[in-house]
Amino acid sequence: MVVKLFGSPVSTCTARVMLCMEEIGLQYELVPVDLKAGEHQRPPHSDRNPFCQIPALQDGGLVLFESRVITRYLVQKYGKGTYLLKQKSFVDTVAVDQWMEVETQHFNGPISAIVFQHVFLPLLFGGHTDQNVVLLDLDKLGKVLDVYEARLSKTKFLAGDFYSLADLHHLPYGYHLINNTPHGSLINSRPHVKAWWDAITSRQGSKKVLAAMASTS
Amino acid sequence: MVVKLFGSPVSTCTARVMLCMEEIGLQYELVPVDLKAGEHQRPPHSDRNPFCQIPALQDGGLVLFESRVITRYLVQKYGKGTYLLKQKSFVDTVAVDQWMEVETQHFNGPISAIVFQHVFLPLLFGGHTDQNVVLLDLDKLGKVLDVYEARLSKTKFLAGDFYSLADLHHLPYGYHLINNTPHGSLINSRPHVKAWWDAITSRQGSKKVLAAMASTS
Ligand SMILES: N[C@@H](CCC(=O)N[C@@H](CS)C(=O)NCC(=O)O)C(=O)O
Ligand SMILES: N[C@@H](CCC(=O)N[C@@H](CS)C(=O)NCC(=O)O)C(=O)O
Repeated sequence: MVVKLFGSPVSTCTARVMLCMEEIGLQYELVPVDLKAGEHQRPPHSDRNPFCQIPALQDGGLVLFESRVITRYLVQKYGKGTYLLKQKSFVDTVAVDQWMEVETQHFNGPISAIVFQHVFLPLLFGGHTDQNVVLLDLDKLGKVLDVYEARLSKTKFLAGDFYSLADLHHLPYGYHLINNTPHGSLINSRPHVKAWWDAITSRQGSKKVLAAMASTS
Repeated sequence: MVVKLFGSPVSTCTARVMLCMEEIGLQYELVPVDLKAGEHQRPPHSDRNPFCQIPALQDGGLVLFESRVITRYLVQKYGKGTYLLKQKSFVDTVAVDQWMEVETQHFNGPISAIVFQHVFLPLLFGGHTDQNVVLLDLDKLGKVLDVYEARLSKTKFLAGDFYSLADLHHLPYGYHLINNTPHGSLINSRPHVKAWWDAITSRQGSKKVLAAMASTS
């Protein structure tokens, strides 16, 4: 029985899990949850995730939610041959945790606000971009990417010289920033961030999922 | 050489790490970083954490930041005899990850905003509580705690019938909500949440750190 992913490729958090599944070569079934119809707010989806969001994962009798919990689980269970999470040295493994948390605590907030204003607000809610909100978050994101620029001048990827979940988690919002907002220069103007971005988007598994995202937005 | 924790017990995120250290019985040195004097924004602290926040940890040559990364590291390295992170069954271990992420993604945002308005804004910045901000976050936090109430009617602690980091991470902000804001009823009015709260605050290691927090606020 293949694992089931409940969500939609239009959702950045669903895409984050799909990117992980492609990276570890895991077969899965994508079961659509229709946000416009409010399917996420009622059973059976609200039984899968009491916070009524996508994605959720079902693997046999186990049900999980939160994209970053799902990727961690999938790599531990199905991606043992990869080095997405666990490195040979404990210190490198801790570095993956360190930079996954940086994505969660520092990168995700401002970039998701910018992408919401430029992409999802017009696309899903017929609203207009609020430039004042965007300005504040552009400033915050710029400062975060300054830290990344310094880090990536020392290591090829965020956690070290190896690709890991810490990099992968950045792909969905970074994709939208570059392709669907006028602010891609935040990434493109920083040489080490740009080289990192090119490296992580040109992986086989990334290309496939980013193409699926492109066809929905 | 004992590990060094750079921070201050007045800081909730520093307290989160101290709670973990007490729980695993780890000796450490608390090295104060003076936020009022801006010590966190310049070297040597900005070399420990490029985002210029406390806490940071130094263990020999390894330096880490982000409180939840530090607790995960400490339990993996020094708390193997405990079940704070890794359970006997993989499914239980995944449940710890699941509920740690719920704390990060759902609980921390609204509760830290409420505590900031009632505690840190007056205490550190001489400001006044903005009731409109608080109202919104009280509503959000109430909905999160409804999910907790349902969960805790089935298991004694968040991840299962065992105490884990998923519970521990809630202590610093929960402590302030109950003791230093007028909104402790959010916890106290929900019977299963209240029983859980009593259980996790009455542990030996919790008591010691919560007492240190009390003496600073
Ligand atoms: N932290 C969650 C966020 C999930 C999330 O925000 N999902 C969005 C779609 S990308 C959603 O379900 N939105 C509908 C809603 O919140 O009502 C994760 O990483 O899985
Ligand atoms: N996500 C970080 C948050 C750290 C944080 O917000 N620290 C506060 C004290 S609790 C701080 O350093 N504030 C000063 C500042 O941000 O300028 C963690 O969990 O360690």
